[in-house]
Amino acid sequence: MRLLENIQSVLIDLDGTVLHGDRLIKGAVETIEALQNAGKKVAFLSNRGNLSRAEGLERLRGHGIYVEKEAIIFSSTVTARFIKAHYPKASVWVLGNKGLGEEICAHDIPIAQTPEEADFVVVTLHDAITYDELNNAFRATSADARIIATNSDKTYPNEEGPAIDVAGFIGAIEAATGRKTELVVGKPSCFMAEAALDYVGTEAKHCLIVGDSMESDIALGRLQGMKTALVLTGNTTEEALTHVPERRQPDAVFESIADLRGEL
Amino acid sequence: MRLLENIQSVLIDLDGTVLHGDRLIKGAVETIEALQNAGKKVAFLSNRGNLSRAEGLERLRGHGIYVEKEAIIFSSTVTARFIKAHYPKASVWVLGNKGLGEEICAHDIPIAQTPEEADFVVVTLHDAITYDELNNAFRATSADARIIATNSDKTYPNEEGPAIDVAGFIGAIEAATGRKTELVVGKPSCFMAEAALDYVGTEAKHCLIVGDSMESDIALGRLQGMKTALVLTGNTTEEALTHVPERRQPDAVFESIADLRGEL
Repeated sequence: MRLLENIQSVLIDLDGTVLHGDRLIKGAVETIEALQNAGKKVAFLSNRGNLSRAEGLERLRGHGIYVEKEAIIFSSTVTARFIKAHYPKASVWVLGNKGLGEEICAHDIPIAQTPEEADFVVVTLHDAITYDELNNAFRATSADARIIATNSDKTYPNEEGPAIDVAGFIGAIEAATGRKTELVVGKPSCFMAEAALDYVGTEAKHCLIVGDSMESDIALGRLQGMKTALVLTGNTTEEALTHVPERRQPDAVFESIADLRGEL
Repeated sequence: MRLLENIQSVLIDLDGTVLHGDRLIKGAVETIEALQNAGKKVAFLSNRGNLSRAEGLERLRGHGIYVEKEAIIFSSTVTARFIKAHYPKASVWVLGNKGLGEEICAHDIPIAQTPEEADFVVVTLHDAITYDELNNAFRATSADARIIATNSDKTYPNEEGPAIDVAGFIGAIEAATGRKTELVVGKPSCFMAEAALDYVGTEAKHCLIVGDSMESDIALGRLQGMKTALVLTGNTTEEALTHVPERRQPDAVFESIADLRGEL
């Protein structure tokens, strides 16, 4: 059976799959267009917690990728939606780049006046963090705020190699306060999968997920019953795949997302 | 306004509120009966992840407390229900007393054949743990199983004083594998609150939660918009309350659950 047979929707990871930092992966735009032209509903499912959906939309448009805003599913948005739905009376403190704060505000979640008044600290990547910002998250947590993380990725690739990601900030707060994170929202969680399935409106078995991470993308798709395609442009090597047991293997492996066009 | 005015349902914690270990707290049975006789719907909301609901029912009956099985809401049951609802294709490995395994099986969640095949390790208290059991949870997690904890209480009171609780087992696995827990189900989470509200079928504002823990019981009730009553028979002292800011104070403080009768 061909990979795209019976597939109505394609969920595509961004970093390492479509983009390397600010640089497009060759053939990504053309593949995304071809999928759209073939009538597939395309959504972007990313663990980015430090960008708002509006920022994501702008970046994608800058690269010539056109989708509606709702097709961009970041862990920042899913985290904000979770808090609003399940803790409607909570106020939060944010540790992260401004995109997360924008999503929190877009969901009408109150930001606490002081760290000590927050019910939750929401943690994501902050690549311009100051000591005061880190310390404010510590103060909130010391005063009994609970920890929710947009994701728990350990590193992300930047120009000089792997760079410290959300796990580092979580680790700092947990180590200094003795408190533990109670919820990690990002892929491979059901929260991300369900947000994506809600948007595309198709059953999981009619979805293909495409990404570079066995732990985030392939694991999510496999447990939800989606078809899965791994690309080798990001954090998984072909050699690493040889150590993965059969039942956890992706349905397809491509050198890059550009090869997905051949499946149409 | 009197505490029980407009209250239709009462959610009662067990350890430290109704029971000290296997010993009933004086007046607890009579208070529960009085609430039931006054037409209040009573449910027990406990972070116990190592007991099944059937075991809980038997224990309560042994103490002369009569409710239907569904009125016992343990983190073991809520965890099993969460996995079944959100990860219906997952298989799990269990680290904990047999009660958790019973809840997992009661929800038709497959137990992996070997630790290495599990999608999740579900961690709770295991007060008869062996090294092999701990190591099997380590093996599962090392082979990429994700960690879900029924709760993350650090200690519980036993005959000799505070005894190591679920946080200790989580810490062992996290430290040895470098992986993090992605979900803690127990109080004060929305998962426990929503399970309780589902059962009692009343709006949060018509519920009273009674418990001995500011972090588990009072925090849950406050964020959900329930009325809250702290009892001083467990892990909170009157002195500790003086350090709690006004907005986090319970609506009422009682020496013990027996004093709740006076509110009827």
